[in-house]
Amino acid sequence: MTEEMEKLFEELASLFENKKYTQLKRLLSDTEPADIAKFLEDNLDEIDQIKFFRLLPKDLASDVFIETESDTQEALIKAFTDKELKAVIDDMFVDDAVDVIEEMPANVVKRILKNSDPENRKQINELLEYPDDSAGSIMTTEFVSFSADMTVEQGFEKIRRTGINSETIYTCYITDNRKHLIGVISVKQMLLAEKTDVMRDIMDDSVITVETLDDKEQVAMMLSKYDFLALPVVDREGCLVGIVTVDDAVDVLQEEATEDIQKMAAILPTEKPYLKQSVWSIWKARIPWLLLLMVSATFTSMILSGYEGRLMAISSGAVLYAFVPMLMDTAGNAGGQSSVTVIRSLALNEIEFKDIFRIVWKEFRVSIMLAFTVAAVCFSKLMLIDRLYNDLTWDIAAIVAGVLFITIVMAKFVGCILPLIAKKCKLDPAVVASPFITTIVDALSLIIYCSVSIALLG
Amino acid sequence: MTEEMEKLFEELASLFENKKYTQLKRLLSDTEPADIAKFLEDNLDEIDQIKFFRLLPKDLASDVFIETESDTQEALIKAFTDKELKAVIDDMFVDDAVDVIEEMPANVVKRILKNSDPENRKQINELLEYPDDSAGSIMTTEFVSFSADMTVEQGFEKIRRTGINSETIYTCYITDNRKHLIGVISVKQMLLAEKTDVMRDIMDDSVITVETLDDKEQVAMMLSKYDFLALPVVDREGCLVGIVTVDDAVDVLQEEATEDIQKMAAILPTEKPYLKQSVWSIWKARIPWLLLLMVSATFTSMILSGYEGRLMAISSGAVLYAFVPMLMDTAGNAGGQSSVTVIRSLALNEIEFKDIFRIVWKEFRVSIMLAFTVAAVCFSKLMLIDRLYNDLTWDIAAIVAGVLFITIVMAKFVGCILPLIAKKCKLDPAVVASPFITTIVDALSLIIYCSVSIALLG
Repeated sequence: MTEEMEKLFEELASLFENKKYTQLKRLLSDTEPADIAKFLEDNLDEIDQIKFFRLLPKDLASDVFIETESDTQEALIKAFTDKELKAVIDDMFVDDAVDVIEEMPANVVKRILKNSDPENRKQINELLEYPDDSAGSIMTTEFVSFSADMTVEQGFEKIRRTGINSETIYTCYITDNRKHLIGVISVKQMLLAEKTDVMRDIMDDSVITVETLDDKEQVAMMLSKYDFLALPVVDREGCLVGIVTVDDAVDVLQEEATEDIQKMAAILPTEKPYLKQSVWSIWKARIPWLLLLMVSATFTSMILSGYEGRLMAISSGAVLYAFVPMLMDTAGNAGGQSSVTVIRSLALNEIEFKDIFRIVWKEFRVSIMLAFTVAAVCFSKLMLIDRLYNDLTWDIAAIVAGVLFITIVMAKFVGCILPLIAKKCKLDPAVVASPFITTIVDALSLIIYCSVSIALLG
Repeated sequence: MTEEMEKLFEELASLFENKKYTQLKRLLSDTEPADIAKFLEDNLDEIDQIKFFRLLPKDLASDVFIETESDTQEALIKAFTDKELKAVIDDMFVDDAVDVIEEMPANVVKRILKNSDPENRKQINELLEYPDDSAGSIMTTEFVSFSADMTVEQGFEKIRRTGINSETIYTCYITDNRKHLIGVISVKQMLLAEKTDVMRDIMDDSVITVETLDDKEQVAMMLSKYDFLALPVVDREGCLVGIVTVDDAVDVLQEEATEDIQKMAAILPTEKPYLKQSVWSIWKARIPWLLLLMVSATFTSMILSGYEGRLMAISSGAVLYAFVPMLMDTAGNAGGQSSVTVIRSLALNEIEFKDIFRIVWKEFRVSIMLAFTVAAVCFSKLMLIDRLYNDLTWDIAAIVAGVLFITIVMAKFVGCILPLIAKKCKLDPAVVASPFITTIVDALSLIIYCSVSIALLG
């Protein structure tokens, strides 16, 4: 937290405690909703939260409300009178109301819907039906639309009349009388045009659209790729049903990046911020993969046990054992580098499955170079350092370095190919990431290590 | 790539090959610059690229140019005449020109600066001086500003006059005669106000600003937090020097997420898309950590060698060895879960160093629950499955499960504390992530495993 913010919070707290409500209200109307929400959550208990909330200027209340976490929202809703609830919900954009509702228990949802006006309720219910990861679930139905024969002046008139309730006014849409989307125009274009120009002549008629069921991550990527402020969402008949705005797209991109990072670290994805998650829910997100990977590591134990007799029969068996962790860690790191690179590139649409041969060929060349460097350094290290504490002969050092070479090349191959195959099979590439690949690579490298050692030294 | 896009690319290619330039130009003017850039790069060789580029409608050329990768840009610039270069550069926003220049070799930079008009050149040179990770490096100097006594109508006049050259017109800034920023107003507010209203009365005078040297990631996070379309950048004297727009903020957030993911996977961060990177540059990005981690794994070899004599003296020494990989992998995964969670939460500003005690306490409770579950399952697995192929007695199973318990708790502690300490020391938390923590946790868990086994069984 910046110093500025700390000072602001102290001032808010002192004004609130000393009941200087007029000054407090003045300060609040100059403060960003996101900051008020943070103050509310970090500094006040539940009873004070609702007291404080009631002091908010009316036009700020719902903006602050949507910036709070869902458990705060639930507590506030429970403390609201029906009238307060109605005021807050009706003042929200429909897509924000839907975001709130999606996190609430059934009885709270009922109360919210009961207390929102019929038109809002209808739109909320429609939006609630779209699948969680679809464009429909993040779009808003509040946008400005024109008919093609309106003039620029009439357009501005309409913005003045209805714009206050629209999530963005800067991109406006032109539809025909059956709501088919036929064009798009920006306020910038309108300002630079003549007042008497007709929409049909100045609008851009090659509109990029998405459909309601398109994946929301891909929609967010499109907004970012084209640097748009909003993207129109159409249904299967080409009728305009909503828009996705850039602020929601940013949230989606951040969430998806977090989810991918969590999956790569063998955690089930969660949306809640860390400090808001209960110990129990963190346990639930982490235990499945931890257990699965522990159990699948049975293979490495089986392999080591299987080779044990023959390995110990070699005079230097114990020396060989000492390098198992080094081999396994290096293989895991090498595989992880490739898999994570491929997974992120897939997420950013930089590569597709059809690039598989280019990727494998590139990774193969990189892996030969990496394997050669690491094996050479490893051999030198073994002869210079490890000989000091271990009965290490040059032939064992050569075997360790040689197996390290093979292991790195193999790990890089597995690391780049598995996410691509997962993508092709419509699975999530991030789920097959590092920890999973480590387990496969560990088993393979152990088999190579043990069999090569026994073949050459046994 | 979508089917639609494939069809578009085929059409572009066929029109270009058959020299149907009139039709091609018409199609191009309806196509997004980002898509044209992708077509140019994926489907044409260098000679055709410049031929194709010359066919672009004039107002599209620079938009397409900035969407191409830097190696394409370099090739195009080399093929441009001075006049073409000047046209493209002068038509760009200054911040885009700076992005292009930053990737070019010195002789190309010289040529670009020589061919841009004096006013542009001055601004470009100023922007080039800001550090790479600062707000100054991503801001643009083309914005709309008003004086406080202008009316709304005069404001619109100014937008009409100068707006075409501004990166965004939707947020305008009010400055005094010494360029101090004193207020902000949106075009939406202006449209909803009366034409005769004066800026001073309707502007928002509590402006959130950033400074030129502020970290660009924090600036991007602020834009996303407040859902702004642009943020004003001021110098130390409070004078408005530029703005950061939301499209650039999105790019920064995506880049930073990619960089963090790369660091967590022990790769030096790179900005270029994977397929554009040379084998050599991928090698350079991956080799340092791979070598470092391989060398630091020397500790595990030393530990295993050190305990070897005493471990092998135990009758079940070889059985104990078989579970080393499983212990190490589980410890690595457990530590990685915690470190990655903390690193991402730090990046999203969800936690700060001062939360350290809350975090450690939370991770401690989670780790006890996880360790208990995993150890219990492991003990059962050992007695039910591993006994089938191994001389496993219940006391060895108990030692393995017990050490697993301790290891997980310890790994989670190391995993959550190291990124926080790194942050406090102004180091990058992502750099100390999973691979590094794995190495530490591996060494610790081996020491515990060997010493506990020898103490109880030896």
